[in-house]
Amino acid sequence: MSGVVAGAVSRAAVLAGLVLAALVLRPAGDAAAKPVTVADLLAGSPAEDWRVPDAEDTLYMDLARGRVVIELASRAAPQHVANIRALARTHYFDGLAIVRVQDNYVVQWDDPDHHRPVPAGVRAAVEFTAAAGADARFEPLADRDVYAPQIGFLDGFPAARDPRSHIVWLAHCYGMVGAGRDDPPESDGTEMYAVIGHAPRQLDRNVALVGRVLQGMELLSSLPRGSGEMGFYVPSEPTVPIRSVRIAADVPEAERTPIEMLRTNSATFRAVLEQRRQRHEPWFKFSPDHIDLCNVPLPVRAIPSAGR
Amino acid sequence: MSGVVAGAVSRAAVLAGLVLAALVLRPAGDAAAKPVTVADLLAGSPAEDWRVPDAEDTLYMDLARGRVVIELASRAAPQHVANIRALARTHYFDGLAIVRVQDNYVVQWDDPDHHRPVPAGVRAAVEFTAAAGADARFEPLADRDVYAPQIGFLDGFPAARDPRSHIVWLAHCYGMVGAGRDDPPESDGTEMYAVIGHAPRQLDRNVALVGRVLQGMELLSSLPRGSGEMGFYVPSEPTVPIRSVRIAADVPEAERTPIEMLRTNSATFRAVLEQRRQRHEPWFKFSPDHIDLCNVPLPVRAIPSAGR
Repeated sequence: MSGVVAGAVSRAAVLAGLVLAALVLRPAGDAAAKPVTVADLLAGSPAEDWRVPDAEDTLYMDLARGRVVIELASRAAPQHVANIRALARTHYFDGLAIVRVQDNYVVQWDDPDHHRPVPAGVRAAVEFTAAAGADARFEPLADRDVYAPQIGFLDGFPAARDPRSHIVWLAHCYGMVGAGRDDPPESDGTEMYAVIGHAPRQLDRNVALVGRVLQGMELLSSLPRGSGEMGFYVPSEPTVPIRSVRIAADVPEAERTPIEMLRTNSATFRAVLEQRRQRHEPWFKFSPDHIDLCNVPLPVRAIPSAGR
Repeated sequence: MSGVVAGAVSRAAVLAGLVLAALVLRPAGDAAAKPVTVADLLAGSPAEDWRVPDAEDTLYMDLARGRVVIELASRAAPQHVANIRALARTHYFDGLAIVRVQDNYVVQWDDPDHHRPVPAGVRAAVEFTAAAGADARFEPLADRDVYAPQIGFLDGFPAARDPRSHIVWLAHCYGMVGAGRDDPPESDGTEMYAVIGHAPRQLDRNVALVGRVLQGMELLSSLPRGSGEMGFYVPSEPTVPIRSVRIAADVPEAERTPIEMLRTNSATFRAVLEQRRQRHEPWFKFSPDHIDLCNVPLPVRAIPSAGR
């Protein structure tokens, strides 16, 4: 197989559940020199290194082309997540559409005319940084960052921290989901976006991030770009209707998407990180020795026992 | 207009030639507080701050959905660019197809069966770092980087440098184009890829980067992802045929795409950079103060005199 950048595993490949065993071509019998791949690490990982996202924190956005599964950051952005649950439970998003696809930036969905009634209890809030208690849960990485003094993970999401103020915030990596807003800083979750390009980290601490796409990212990222300003679709362009947005807990078991995620505080995850900093595969002639927060793979897979 | 992340201009928006004047909502009459936007800076820039890419260094890849315009890095990767010119001139790529689209990673095109004859003069080479002389042309930025000790621009392309060895290399930012390879480090340009996701900077110094997409990036980034391993299309998936790949100099004037690019050594570019580090638009509640190399806008526009 013709193999551009054959040694590189992207997060998307892992997300897509691809078997990566073929990624590194090993000379047979050369056991001593065997590089350990991410696929090896995942295949050998104990079951307790994985977690199933809480059904109350899992959002399904069903499009004609398939399902986008989002984990909501209920501890970092509790008010927004409460809003989004309430919106999903009143079927607020059903029949709305994706209204904006800006290349190398974001996909956005909302009610452009603000015609839909917003359920009682949905309150606009500012949640640019994580709610109280995040500092104790933050898992730091030693790696450098361009935008923040410290980076790491919070509740499984890419995040950053200011060691002086102990403030923690989620980071705008590929696949992160946020609550759009206009100029007042408050947002309520009725307008949502997902990052589909190089991490726009300049948005960190300027918008409430509310979750991350766990599966189906390619359904958003491959949408036609809008030809209007800032990638908004213009009337002549076909819309992308949203069939429904549901909290997984409200969906019958048989219709749920059984996936699990590698815990960011597990030994397997630490080994994956180190494998991605130091590339020992023969394809790599120069090891990067570093990793960007937004290049860290966050493995997601079908639950093995689910028999898919 | 509903305005998620309304204050942020992506490179893609600039690439797409969008008028960005509406991006920042200014209170009328509040001249003193007027933030200067990228659109303002570009609108007020002198003609000499722009350059037209050399027609010998400009590659047109024509797909059914439109034209992808690539500037070739003829000084950084002279052997690969000579190869690519020779391949284009023998119509090597015409009738081939895009064979791989891996989400958050790369789009790739080549001759999967290696059936096509390679013209005489095409020689496989290793050009992981820029050819001699690059150090003197490197334009450094003061900004931090995760992967390299120093970053900046080389001949208009995002690049990095090691101040000890004076080695310079191009960086795998969104829209950069490289020459794929298998395990031997040499490549010849018959296999090409473009970056469509978060910058896979771990590939820097591991592959020859040969250029950058100037226009038409969304034609590649919005392609359906391949369902095979590493995003390769499987036989049941529709292919994306390449109508032709041509050097602009070989295309009649009337069929060329008249675009120009902001010079990275211009005062306007320095002002754009500073505007993107320090965000003064009212939408921004927290200024990032930093910029990631791959978030620097590299403005491209239709040549004003071309009347398009």
